[in-house]
Amino acid sequence: MKSYHLRPGAGIDGLTVREHDEPAPGPGRVLVRVRATSISLRELLVLAGDYPLPVLPDVVPGCAGVGEVVAVGAGVTRVAPGDRVAATVFPDWIDGPFGLDHAAQLGSSRDGLFTEFALADERALVHIPAHLSFTEAAALPLTAVTAWNALTGGRAPVPGETVLTLGTGNVSLFAVRFAKRSGARVIATTSGPDKAERLRALGADEVVDHRQHLRWGEEVRRRTGGRGVDRVVDVVGDLSQSLAATALGGEIAFVGHWLGTDAPGRTPSPTDFFNAGAVLRPLAVGSRAAFETMNRAVDAWRVRPTIHREFGFDEIPEALRYYGKGGFVGNVVVDHG
Amino acid sequence: MKSYHLRPGAGIDGLTVREHDEPAPGPGRVLVRVRATSISLRELLVLAGDYPLPVLPDVVPGCAGVGEVVAVGAGVTRVAPGDRVAATVFPDWIDGPFGLDHAAQLGSSRDGLFTEFALADERALVHIPAHLSFTEAAALPLTAVTAWNALTGGRAPVPGETVLTLGTGNVSLFAVRFAKRSGARVIATTSGPDKAERLRALGADEVVDHRQHLRWGEEVRRRTGGRGVDRVVDVVGDLSQSLAATALGGEIAFVGHWLGTDAPGRTPSPTDFFNAGAVLRPLAVGSRAAFETMNRAVDAWRVRPTIHREFGFDEIPEALRYYGKGGFVGNVVVDHG
Amino acid sequence: MKSYHLRPGAGIDGLTVREHDEPAPGPGRVLVRVRATSISLRELLVLAGDYPLPVLPDVVPGCAGVGEVVAVGAGVTRVAPGDRVAATVFPDWIDGPFGLDHAAQLGSSRDGLFTEFALADERALVHIPAHLSFTEAAALPLTAVTAWNALTGGRAPVPGETVLTLGTGNVSLFAVRFAKRSGARVIATTSGPDKAERLRALGADEVVDHRQHLRWGEEVRRRTGGRGVDRVVDVVGDLSQSLAATALGGEIAFVGHWLGTDAPGRTPSPTDFFNAGAVLRPLAVGSRAAFETMNRAVDAWRVRPTIHREFGFDEIPEALRYYGKGGFVGNVVVDHG
Amino acid sequence: MKSYHLRPGAGIDGLTVREHDEPAPGPGRVLVRVRATSISLRELLVLAGDYPLPVLPDVVPGCAGVGEVVAVGAGVTRVAPGDRVAATVFPDWIDGPFGLDHAAQLGSSRDGLFTEFALADERALVHIPAHLSFTEAAALPLTAVTAWNALTGGRAPVPGETVLTLGTGNVSLFAVRFAKRSGARVIATTSGPDKAERLRALGADEVVDHRQHLRWGEEVRRRTGGRGVDRVVDVVGDLSQSLAATALGGEIAFVGHWLGTDAPGRTPSPTDFFNAGAVLRPLAVGSRAAFETMNRAVDAWRVRPTIHREFGFDEIPEALRYYGKGGFVGNVVVDHG
Repeated sequence: MKSYHLRPGAGIDGLTVREHDEPAPGPGRVLVRVRATSISLRELLVLAGDYPLPVLPDVVPGCAGVGEVVAVGAGVTRVAPGDRVAATVFPDWIDGPFGLDHAAQLGSSRDGLFTEFALADERALVHIPAHLSFTEAAALPLTAVTAWNALTGGRAPVPGETVLTLGTGNVSLFAVRFAKRSGARVIATTSGPDKAERLRALGADEVVDHRQHLRWGEEVRRRTGGRGVDRVVDVVGDLSQSLAATALGGEIAFVGHWLGTDAPGRTPSPTDFFNAGAVLRPLAVGSRAAFETMNRAVDAWRVRPTIHREFGFDEIPEALRYYGKGGFVGNVVVDHG
Repeated sequence: MKSYHLRPGAGIDGLTVREHDEPAPGPGRVLVRVRATSISLRELLVLAGDYPLPVLPDVVPGCAGVGEVVAVGAGVTRVAPGDRVAATVFPDWIDGPFGLDHAAQLGSSRDGLFTEFALADERALVHIPAHLSFTEAAALPLTAVTAWNALTGGRAPVPGETVLTLGTGNVSLFAVRFAKRSGARVIATTSGPDKAERLRALGADEVVDHRQHLRWGEEVRRRTGGRGVDRVVDVVGDLSQSLAATALGGEIAFVGHWLGTDAPGRTPSPTDFFNAGAVLRPLAVGSRAAFETMNRAVDAWRVRPTIHREFGFDEIPEALRYYGKGGFVGNVVVDHG
Repeated sequence: MKSYHLRPGAGIDGLTVREHDEPAPGPGRVLVRVRATSISLRELLVLAGDYPLPVLPDVVPGCAGVGEVVAVGAGVTRVAPGDRVAATVFPDWIDGPFGLDHAAQLGSSRDGLFTEFALADERALVHIPAHLSFTEAAALPLTAVTAWNALTGGRAPVPGETVLTLGTGNVSLFAVRFAKRSGARVIATTSGPDKAERLRALGADEVVDHRQHLRWGEEVRRRTGGRGVDRVVDVVGDLSQSLAATALGGEIAFVGHWLGTDAPGRTPSPTDFFNAGAVLRPLAVGSRAAFETMNRAVDAWRVRPTIHREFGFDEIPEALRYYGKGGFVGNVVVDHG
Repeated sequence: MKSYHLRPGAGIDGLTVREHDEPAPGPGRVLVRVRATSISLRELLVLAGDYPLPVLPDVVPGCAGVGEVVAVGAGVTRVAPGDRVAATVFPDWIDGPFGLDHAAQLGSSRDGLFTEFALADERALVHIPAHLSFTEAAALPLTAVTAWNALTGGRAPVPGETVLTLGTGNVSLFAVRFAKRSGARVIATTSGPDKAERLRALGADEVVDHRQHLRWGEEVRRRTGGRGVDRVVDVVGDLSQSLAATALGGEIAFVGHWLGTDAPGRTPSPTDFFNAGAVLRPLAVGSRAAFETMNRAVDAWRVRPTIHREFGFDEIPEALRYYGKGGFVGNVVVDHG
């Protein structure tokens, strides 16, 4: 079997492929034939040495993937050979809040899924919804779980609330789908009519073009009659605008940020935060319990990710480069065969 | 009966005293003889025109006070003549989260308690603990309720957690008392050995002198073995330091801020917020339910506020000026007689 | 203006109609022209003297109704003349859990809505969704709020969970609608193909005929693959069957019961409760906050109650008698004109 | 190394001791030298064949124990050799609510701790408080965690609330200690002045003798001024009395029951449950997260269990027989040497 290995900071060119013996699962462990993985900004940051969590030399990259159980070790009860499963991005995060004692992560501090076969603890696997292909399901573990946590992990979601999403990244696309099906009114920002149309097709009730409205926070607030939205799924980090958009008592689920948002003058002052009266909640993916709960919703609602393009296992470097160029909408996935 | 009235923005000198007929309580309403009120920064901000919420011309100032029920209107069942009661600062905020539809406030958008007799809705009154005098109990409605909300309104408090308080303002003194009795380890910042000693006497396990440690956030983190505190009761707004002090998954209960904290370079960047992984939760006082729950704790723990100095009803302007000069520890209260 | 008045225990025949002067709203109070009320078992119990809460002699019955604001007293800000509003069944229950200090109830301990004009505290009113007529909206305050509380007031609802409803009473009909739109799989019990068809039309995924399955709890469990349902909205009180139907860790939201369910042998033993591991949560209607949250959902989902039959204000005794005979599906409402 | 093994249903006489090779920990696993275990009713039920969960033939009994880490497998990060640890009773229950997918249990469906050395998954271990000896700490995993879950796992505990405990079993003793330190008023039932004195020494504010008050629920309610207690930690299952004792909106944390409580006439009717308006919440021990949170409290409060009597590893059958006779107060523990 073959696995990719990374050299921290060496980027895509630092990837090497090595041959290994197929491993055997010990007690409580499971051998998974990886069938599909998905590409994300996170992989590029890990390779580039820009990731905030520790990255081990030589680790197998790839935090998000799905596969088929081929063998189980002694005492395994959660899964059986033949089961279609996803690995959880944080294998030790079972339920409850995030914490340092379960911060180990696939593809950075533990071997990830850019490999043909992977060993996993049975507790770090969840079954995937039956209506999704492997390549579709590969979109779930990172971006869908993050969107789910953003919508449900803090302030309880309520049908009829207003949710703001930013752009057409995959977390935001899932947030639009989940929020709309939960009964929310969804306002989405983006640029240009094509992306606006795609957001509307997924369920966005209103789209704000952030090129026309540089102070999009105020425009969003205007569209809520001045009250502000109940929740922002903030994948951008332009917190001044998010704060301007959010109602008193609302929540900014802070999923990520661009380095550009650290520019002077773009961060709200303490007065801004205090007067807005909105909670700022940073988050990273979600627990296994969140993943399982989300899967029940994905199944009930027949949610289907948008696959933009598929690459083969040998083309992972090309897939990463393609992803890095941007300019598309949807998931870039790797079909491991 | 006499009442003080304010002229928004005119400061302490804009206060006038006027004579009124003693009012009679209509259905559901209660006539309270005000027995004591407490002075806070909030009153000075309201008078100075620096308060973030609306202030009506001619309104009776004073948001925090206690008294004795002297008459009740038809249908009143929560209180009876002779009862010792406090008024809730936000009379319409009964339970649940804060929101715009219950943002009316005593002493700014509704007549407050710098008066001899006040009319209140029965639902805006709570009974006060029996072991406290009226002047002691006058410290509860604003500063104690705020400290209680900071400790219990977001992340659930847990015995054995570490709580950071800042300085010797009254909210912080209550936070030290409540946190210690709840089983928390309390770290407090202050300046100088005298204030440090007072904080230790109230229950602080460790005191960090912020003059010796300008980057006190890092010093606090060091004293938690690098992990960070579980909760900050932040009455200062120097968010960079609070963030430096707080554990992944912890909470900054953001109670207030000084204008100086808005200075450039003192606000965390989006990257700082995201990487710290702590929730920022702004809050303002608390609901009637929080006040009642707190009173059960105040009663069970026999909590007793520190009264620094008492003034008479005719000396309210002097009390406000005295408070404005600072340099003391404890509550400044007005004994209405 | 005319009002009905009751004589506790005297039943429908004890109702009298009296003429009153139209009242004027004092401070904080609102005069509402009642436009529609709804009939429920609760009214019959109150009249018959079988209600578990206190009933005042001569009180105006009718706990559930809607109307139009015609005049407001001094200081009223929540509503304005012309607003379409519903009264909350427990006027003092604003938010948070139920408790004795807000147990006063319209139509039993306070004058209710079988009247032409009613005075209400502004805090005991909520706006009704725009897509509903007055007679439709009259179905909300009691039965819809109860169903909402049953589904959301305890264990958080999750899309993809399984919810069991019992029969075709109005609480159950709303529970089917709300649960289905929330993404739940709904199993409903009833008798006969006609009612089964109506339940399916409202969204029930499966219907169990309790005449064919006297031990319907076991049949329901069978249809969940042996796991049990996540939640029962129990309006019947046959707790042995509900317990048999419920998963470990699930919840029985206990909304009501028939006296027949107290028969010996129909109550689970302590062993049954313990081994089932399900929470039993009794509840009664819900808070104003629950009503407002539900209204956002009713609005977002365009939920529309089923009106079975309308009566006129003068026909309230006939409406009560008609309701008491049963044998229909949907709301029986009174159009006050 | 030696281990006890059971024969399901054969009782204490069915125990055999066998010699095994000392095992080596695989990846993620930990070898623990067991230093102390505690005896409980649960062990007797398992041996007698009366336990509601599955019991494997030949399994090593003993669900509650502590020890010292002697070796760790590859990748273990939570513990290190020399660490003092407790095993969690449900090894797969990490955080969140209980559920079927983490119902495997030490000493019944998995090998337990009546052994000299045990292998554990690193995730199924928690560090024990430094102020406790091994024999003291052996009291924590079952009875203390159960008491903690009873007090904190449902309705949030509030200082000043009233908590009712029943008898002098070890769960109840811990409940008295924890509730008192949390600021609750504690009412305890028992029989006789000696036990009453011990309960008072641990913190009970009032003791009700259930021999003098056969309807002790009503007597307890009387001592709350008719309001009822906020919470019962019910280890008995005489639900009619617990319900009589509990306030509207209170909670009965249902920890266990005696078979005698299933006698006809001792179970509340649906009407009783509904009218009482209290939640009935069955529970079993608690998650690893609950254990860790409790340990922070045990550490902060310096809680110390009462050790009634110690036995040696070879005396486990005697210890079980001694426990079965009852008539003592405190923990019966086994010092494994």
